[in-house]
Amino acid sequence: MAPPQSHDPSKQNAVDMNNARAATSTSVSDVRHFLHNGAAHWRKREQISQILSSDPLFDKSKRTFATRKELYIRGQALSNRLYELQEVHKWSSEETKLALSIIDEGLPVGMFRCTFEPVLRLQASPELLSKYGALIASKGILGCYLQTELGHGTNVGRLETTATYIPETREFEIHSPTLSSTKWWIGALGKTATHGVVQAKLILPGGKDMGPHLFFVQLRCLDTHKVLPGRVIGDIGPKALAGYPTTDNGFARFDRVRIPKENMLSKFAGVTDAGEYITPPHAKLSYGGMLYIRSGMVTGAGWLIGKGVTVAIRYATVRRQGEIGSDGLERQIITYPSLNVRLIPIISRAYVFVELGRALTRGFNTLARDLSSGDTSQLAEMHMMTSGLKVLVSTTGIQDLETARRSMGGHGYSAFAGVGRMYADYVPAATYEGENYVLDGQVLRAALKSFRSVVAGGAPTTTAAALSPTSYYLRLLLDKNLLPPELGPASWKQPATPILLLEWRAALLVHESAQTIGEPDASATQRVSRAVTEAFVAARVGEMIQGVGNTLKPREADVVKKVYLLYLLTTVESALVDLLSFGLFRAVPMGNPPRSRDPTRELRLAIAALCGELLPEAIGLTDAFGFSDWELDSALGVYDGTAYEALWKKVQEEPLNQTEVTEAYEASIKPLLMRGRRLAAKL
Amino acid sequence: MAPPQSHDPSKQNAVDMNNARAATSTSVSDVRHFLHNGAAHWRKREQISQILSSDPLFDKSKRTFATRKELYIRGQALSNRLYELQEVHKWSSEETKLALSIIDEGLPVGMFRCTFEPVLRLQASPELLSKYGALIASKGILGCYLQTELGHGTNVGRLETTATYIPETREFEIHSPTLSSTKWWIGALGKTATHGVVQAKLILPGGKDMGPHLFFVQLRCLDTHKVLPGRVIGDIGPKALAGYPTTDNGFARFDRVRIPKENMLSKFAGVTDAGEYITPPHAKLSYGGMLYIRSGMVTGAGWLIGKGVTVAIRYATVRRQGEIGSDGLERQIITYPSLNVRLIPIISRAYVFVELGRALTRGFNTLARDLSSGDTSQLAEMHMMTSGLKVLVSTTGIQDLETARRSMGGHGYSAFAGVGRMYADYVPAATYEGENYVLDGQVLRAALKSFRSVVAGGAPTTTAAALSPTSYYLRLLLDKNLLPPELGPASWKQPATPILLLEWRAALLVHESAQTIGEPDASATQRVSRAVTEAFVAARVGEMIQGVGNTLKPREADVVKKVYLLYLLTTVESALVDLLSFGLFRAVPMGNPPRSRDPTRELRLAIAALCGELLPEAIGLTDAFGFSDWELDSALGVYDGTAYEALWKKVQEEPLNQTEVTEAYEASIKPLLMRGRRLAAKL
Repeated sequence: MAPPQSHDPSKQNAVDMNNARAATSTSVSDVRHFLHNGAAHWRKREQISQILSSDPLFDKSKRTFATRKELYIRGQALSNRLYELQEVHKWSSEETKLALSIIDEGLPVGMFRCTFEPVLRLQASPELLSKYGALIASKGILGCYLQTELGHGTNVGRLETTATYIPETREFEIHSPTLSSTKWWIGALGKTATHGVVQAKLILPGGKDMGPHLFFVQLRCLDTHKVLPGRVIGDIGPKALAGYPTTDNGFARFDRVRIPKENMLSKFAGVTDAGEYITPPHAKLSYGGMLYIRSGMVTGAGWLIGKGVTVAIRYATVRRQGEIGSDGLERQIITYPSLNVRLIPIISRAYVFVELGRALTRGFNTLARDLSSGDTSQLAEMHMMTSGLKVLVSTTGIQDLETARRSMGGHGYSAFAGVGRMYADYVPAATYEGENYVLDGQVLRAALKSFRSVVAGGAPTTTAAALSPTSYYLRLLLDKNLLPPELGPASWKQPATPILLLEWRAALLVHESAQTIGEPDASATQRVSRAVTEAFVAARVGEMIQGVGNTLKPREADVVKKVYLLYLLTTVESALVDLLSFGLFRAVPMGNPPRSRDPTRELRLAIAALCGELLPEAIGLTDAFGFSDWELDSALGVYDGTAYEALWKKVQEEPLNQTEVTEAYEASIKPLLMRGRRLAAKL
Repeated sequence: MAPPQSHDPSKQNAVDMNNARAATSTSVSDVRHFLHNGAAHWRKREQISQILSSDPLFDKSKRTFATRKELYIRGQALSNRLYELQEVHKWSSEETKLALSIIDEGLPVGMFRCTFEPVLRLQASPELLSKYGALIASKGILGCYLQTELGHGTNVGRLETTATYIPETREFEIHSPTLSSTKWWIGALGKTATHGVVQAKLILPGGKDMGPHLFFVQLRCLDTHKVLPGRVIGDIGPKALAGYPTTDNGFARFDRVRIPKENMLSKFAGVTDAGEYITPPHAKLSYGGMLYIRSGMVTGAGWLIGKGVTVAIRYATVRRQGEIGSDGLERQIITYPSLNVRLIPIISRAYVFVELGRALTRGFNTLARDLSSGDTSQLAEMHMMTSGLKVLVSTTGIQDLETARRSMGGHGYSAFAGVGRMYADYVPAATYEGENYVLDGQVLRAALKSFRSVVAGGAPTTTAAALSPTSYYLRLLLDKNLLPPELGPASWKQPATPILLLEWRAALLVHESAQTIGEPDASATQRVSRAVTEAFVAARVGEMIQGVGNTLKPREADVVKKVYLLYLLTTVESALVDLLSFGLFRAVPMGNPPRSRDPTRELRLAIAALCGELLPEAIGLTDAFGFSDWELDSALGVYDGTAYEALWKKVQEEPLNQTEVTEAYEASIKPLLMRGRRLAAKL
């Protein structure tokens, strides 16, 4: 008889990965350049990534075992080194930003870039900027953005911190009147920042409350880093799931802290020396900073999802389990439809978000130009769009990272799998920069407003051509000749059907919502917001499908088109309750005995078939993201596929394994065993 | 003018909690006794909880800041103390089990109880039990259950570890032939256990492979705790999301380790001295242990969900945000329907799972008696039921904990909120004790088997009365006179409609699945498994509603009935895709311009209305779970409602806050600032 063991799964790992890579039909390099917005961008990224990963300071092998305090201290060392490297390599601001995103360790300096700097740049007076601009840009001072309070988050209008104007001295007095007015959750405030932009209610002489405005306040001494008098500042402690350990989210209380009048961010609103209010040209002008952050969240979500799914796809390629396949071995788990229909759509969402975010950032740059010249005409639309997209990408991204982690079974729950860390750092995205449920409400209100002006306004004269991209779906309610698509087996081969279905769903849901506004059900807001956003995204994906041939060669374009189509089909699948409710999928009538057929079956089969077609491309499509092993920091997602060996190696570094007998033995285990033996002897 | 600040949210917290508690219309004590299976059980629990919480060793205030190694060592101290207390207070085995569940720190001793001990008790020979039984019961030895390997999880049939019988010496040789055969993820193996039950392929003389069997193997020396020769053992490192830090999940490799023949767990299968196989009476007899674990998971999920939702409900009661209510203050967030329709259904799931798990454990005790006398007639049904329920409760529980955490907005992401820790510890439940997707497959196969024997078997002679509870829904396919319920506004007032709908959904989905078995879509398995399980649970909930009046007084029974009804309605809501697909909800035909109405609207309104009715009871219903502040360990979920003060107090203990200027200043922040100032000066 043959020896009981003739096949070694650990050795098979690398073979399977090699074979999968060889089977990819596309040029990974071409697709990579496409994703990275051109070969030049990609080469720049690769170069920076190599500089960072070869620097011993950026080694990640110990961080899994460190305390949060150690991780914070390490993070500061990384930040300092980053700007050292910036000087050495003469990186531009854009290149340093790229380096920061490659490092991906939640560094507090990332906070300065994302919130403090843009807010200041958009809203500070030219005088304030000329005084601090260079210092801020060069990190001569470190800032943070103090908005949220212990007692108030998304509802900025009810913040309690006050900034009372004192005309006698031309000063503002920043004050925290209650415990709940303590600024809270402020990134980089806890132990790092020297300055901050404080969101506070402007109180004019006589006590008139003008609502939230922004004030530039020094927090720590520039010579000693000690907290300045009148401020009580600290770190708010560890985050759930051990997320974001490197960032010192902090709290701050102000006890009548005086700042000069010039420190108000007064580009749009201000106070005269006498204490009279200078009205801003647009009430929502100060939302500019938040819009910038949100538009970056779309691309960011794309890359992050891409990271998680790269790990999961690689592991699913080398993990074999269950049925015996044609090669006489257990099947690679990625070949199971129940698994690949979960993972391959995640690739499609990463591809769509990367491209979509890029378009959005272009839109923001236009908006920023408009805003700085006082033109607010695009603000409302941009606001709605970014709100809806922020909800969509954060909800989807959180879910996709968890799906990717869970697809790896038991080993996905190891810290060394790496995807859990991505999830822990990303999950607050559902809450920060606008709580998702609150944002949904804003999208709903904007959608109803468009509906009323376009459709319900007596005799509608609006033409489809005049509709903005965010309300283009409303054309379906304008023209009686437009009908929902008829569904047949061929419906799922081309993008037009899912796009039109998703637009119809948005139109009918908004219509329904307008009819029932007096008694909305509790989930109407979420459904409408999602429908409107997905209709917008679907149309954009349609444009991407049309445009991809301009950038990629036919073979690669064909594969990426399928990836985009998959995005559309899985979006339709997730919208089935709405589509079925509004009769957009025809339910087959039942007899008894029932001979019903499931009307959703053809869609589901089409998704499975498309995933099957993309299966041989999965390794190539994820390789195209271009994440190095150092970036992924995942034993299960190593490039060469040797997941079991990588996991074995990692495990040896666990602190508990550095002594054969644990310290707990003498203290606790031995007494437990001795008592047990004594008791057993009595039985 | 009024001063800008006249109201202090921190002071309001306690007022709001007091008011909410006063508004509860039920006797919390009555409902608590109901949940805890009687006043005597509750008092016992309360007494043990007080003993534990007043013991300084069980203090939790430092654990949030500890390393994993420190948490492991602390966990061992807790375990030792637990058994010391057992001796002091003369606790029964059941009482110690209760204490362990109250401690809720993922102690490795919990692993012994859950896996090692039951497996040994069910499957060891009387001789082996007489030798080790007393030692095991008294913790004179500490065991673990070694099943999963680096290369194989759920697919037990392909485990690589071998146990080769050597007739010459009457020994088995336990061996790990490859890296991937390393035992992995084994709870309490890493640094604690002295013995283990090893799952290994039994190889008979001549090389015949008899598949997996169980063997009792000593791992560490009882005098020194050193690992015995031939074993390589260690901890597998930290878990994702910092979950389960106290448990030393471990790995083990065996290099031809010899054990005596008596150490095979041979109650049902064995080997003669000469090396011939003794066939077990039932191939699946050895699944008994896993069934026991799974039945415990239902009740466990109920209590855990209850814990998470207690925190969220309390915080939502004292947190005020957004619109101004009739009291002139911002509304308590729990009054927003978009929030309370997320939270109150979680209460309903906790109530249902606690009661359902209790019924299931009773069923298991019967099964265990049957099995030990060789009767396996109930095994298949129990197996299907526990598989489906394990998937249902783990999927639901994970989701509910995350919903509860996220409902608390930003503060929900603080480690001090406590719910993140519950989530991190619970999320692997989707994978352990049977990966959910794999279990779904087992449920599907069992359901199709029942369908074929009951319905499709030519002329069906089966009567509804003869159907088992798990396939009772199939009666709907037997009798042509049975029709789906007609839906109207009154449909959602009584349990019969949702139960019948869910049974119809199961029947039609299984029917559809049987028709399309040759070309199943990729999600059919999950849909069928869920439908069949939810039909079973719905019928049980119907029984609970009928029975609750026997235990509770009318007022309390009325409230608990509403809680149960809410469970049914939200289950229907989550099943809408299936119900709509199969025409069980009638979609209204569209015209143009569309005047469609959403057929799901009445259900959604009914859910919102029921949540509204239960809103004043939410604090009472969660107080009734009986969790003390020490048990919850949550700043946001404190009993008296003073969430902001509790959070403030917690934050002061953060290690980063123990020095005013961080150690990172001299090393990293100062150089960064100095460089920045130098560069700024050049600009």
